[in-house]
Amino acid sequence: MDTKPIVLTGHRPTGPRHIGHLVGTLTNWVALQDSHACVFLVADLHVLTTDYAHPDQVRANTLEIVFDWLAAGIDPQRACIALQSALPAHAQLAVLLNNLVTVSRLERVPTYKEQTQQLNLQPSTGLLAYPVLQTADILAYKANRVPVGEDQLPHIELAREVARRFNQLYGPTFPEPVGMLSVMPRLPGVDNRTMHTSYGNAIYLRDSEEETTRKVMSMYTDPTRIHPTDPGHIEGNPVFVYHDLFNANGAEVEELKERYVLGKVGDVDVKRRLAAALNATLAPLRERRAEIAAQPERAIEILREGTARARAISQETLELVQERMGLRADEVAGRAPLAI
Amino acid sequence: MDTKPIVLTGHRPTGPRHIGHLVGTLTNWVALQDSHACVFLVADLHVLTTDYAHPDQVRANTLEIVFDWLAAGIDPQRACIALQSALPAHAQLAVLLNNLVTVSRLERVPTYKEQTQQLNLQPSTGLLAYPVLQTADILAYKANRVPVGEDQLPHIELAREVARRFNQLYGPTFPEPVGMLSVMPRLPGVDNRTMHTSYGNAIYLRDSEEETTRKVMSMYTDPTRIHPTDPGHIEGNPVFVYHDLFNANGAEVEELKERYVLGKVGDVDVKRRLAAALNATLAPLRERRAEIAAQPERAIEILREGTARARAISQETLELVQERMGLRADEVAGRAPLAI
Repeated sequence: MDTKPIVLTGHRPTGPRHIGHLVGTLTNWVALQDSHACVFLVADLHVLTTDYAHPDQVRANTLEIVFDWLAAGIDPQRACIALQSALPAHAQLAVLLNNLVTVSRLERVPTYKEQTQQLNLQPSTGLLAYPVLQTADILAYKANRVPVGEDQLPHIELAREVARRFNQLYGPTFPEPVGMLSVMPRLPGVDNRTMHTSYGNAIYLRDSEEETTRKVMSMYTDPTRIHPTDPGHIEGNPVFVYHDLFNANGAEVEELKERYVLGKVGDVDVKRRLAAALNATLAPLRERRAEIAAQPERAIEILREGTARARAISQETLELVQERMGLRADEVAGRAPLAI
Repeated sequence: MDTKPIVLTGHRPTGPRHIGHLVGTLTNWVALQDSHACVFLVADLHVLTTDYAHPDQVRANTLEIVFDWLAAGIDPQRACIALQSALPAHAQLAVLLNNLVTVSRLERVPTYKEQTQQLNLQPSTGLLAYPVLQTADILAYKANRVPVGEDQLPHIELAREVARRFNQLYGPTFPEPVGMLSVMPRLPGVDNRTMHTSYGNAIYLRDSEEETTRKVMSMYTDPTRIHPTDPGHIEGNPVFVYHDLFNANGAEVEELKERYVLGKVGDVDVKRRLAAALNATLAPLRERRAEIAAQPERAIEILREGTARARAISQETLELVQERMGLRADEVAGRAPLAI
């Protein structure tokens, strides 16, 4: 790592990435690669905090995510792509930092409160302690900046508190990380609800041109419009949200909008143009992805190599923390003198 | 490790060991070394769950404990003496197993309930999750037997539940560990309360002959006895508890008891005989301890070597668990085929 500000962020390998991830996070990550030292974490340990009963899917989804990240432009020459479960220091730090966080503090974390209300099951200790594991992910790299969604901001606040508490107890060690919010609001799915893997309303980066076209043609539009001659609504219409984001031809988009509100263009036509524009935007990404997915052993090698670099950094942080917390008497000979 | 039943047990490095530890656990551990494959764990991570604010003491106490264990007869040729903080698999397993244990289950653990009632502070997540870390300590070696004090039996019950749950979810992996209670009840301290490092009522293995004699001469005896001619009480009298345990001369003990109840021997005399007997019992142990403590680098080497052996075993268990839980996609090439 160099002296650039350090960025730690990541995704849970819950499934392939969709165009909501592309505009919401991946485009932003790609832009950070030059100005920041970036660690992009495949957070497979975090998956287990909400779903430990489908182990078959985690490894497959991990590879899908790496394919998608590389296709979107994450550059393993400039950034680390790292696998959480292959980084012992993350779990080791989490176990140490658990001692600096009260149970009641974690019970007040909004994501925990929401998830325990949604679940019919009793929450697990993994779910409760998950924000401390996330804190460990961040502090392991002494990260300064953490790109996150708005729902994750309370976790960054916890990471800041833990960094501050550790520094008070054991001397200056960690910077207080700052959350970076994406400027992009959540993308609607094809059914106009938020795009989400589990809602079945996502257009995936790995979808073919035909699949993408099919999904676009089935999109929710203006429900008040019965005939192509009815005046249509642009605002809150996901088809036009997509046109604004993915259609590089601004003049075409403006013209379509004008004709739509006047009832002079049909939804089918607007969607056809969108499918063409979206496919054009995704074409180079799809091409890269096909190339990468055809050589999974190459993606695994990239993951291994990024993980090895991340391991060296996180291990160094762990050793500093262990020393400050009075552990590792087996290494004592090379460290601070003992007060026996 | 061979095919003998596997024992995992340990102590927190909270201070030097005393004669209560000797009769309560160490004598028992020493006896197990031939018939069992033993891992004796210096549980320095556990210390932090109740005291993370005195890092200077943990490393020093770790060495003191290793000196005491070796002096008491733990044989590094036959057993592993291992350091918890130097074994990444323990924390990594704990983070994984946290997902299989509900928060409410841990809130019902008696030691947690007691400690949170005693503390004036809010309990930490480390304190709550500590029995899961202990479960990881045990399962990391697929231990069959866990010598513990009675207060720890509910933790073994948790370890059994977690083993069972893991086996149900991911296939047979762990034996259900069984707790082994020491036959020796808790030793009274010199003030007749339970002997405890923090009560200032302990006779330490590292105490000199003079220090031991001084402590014995100040012992609590029969409070109803004012003069040496008053008839004395044997039962519940710690001086006679000690005579029974540490005085190899049974005839002398019987004679002293007879004279004591008849008011024919003074407390000072009874204590002098006890001091002599106790010092005789401790003499060989003290000699070994002085030899070991004079070469701390040798004890550190023993700790490193035992930890290295334990690391290999616990790492193998971790890798099996990671595979069964669907993690480590970076290692996937050499493992189960991917379902992409």
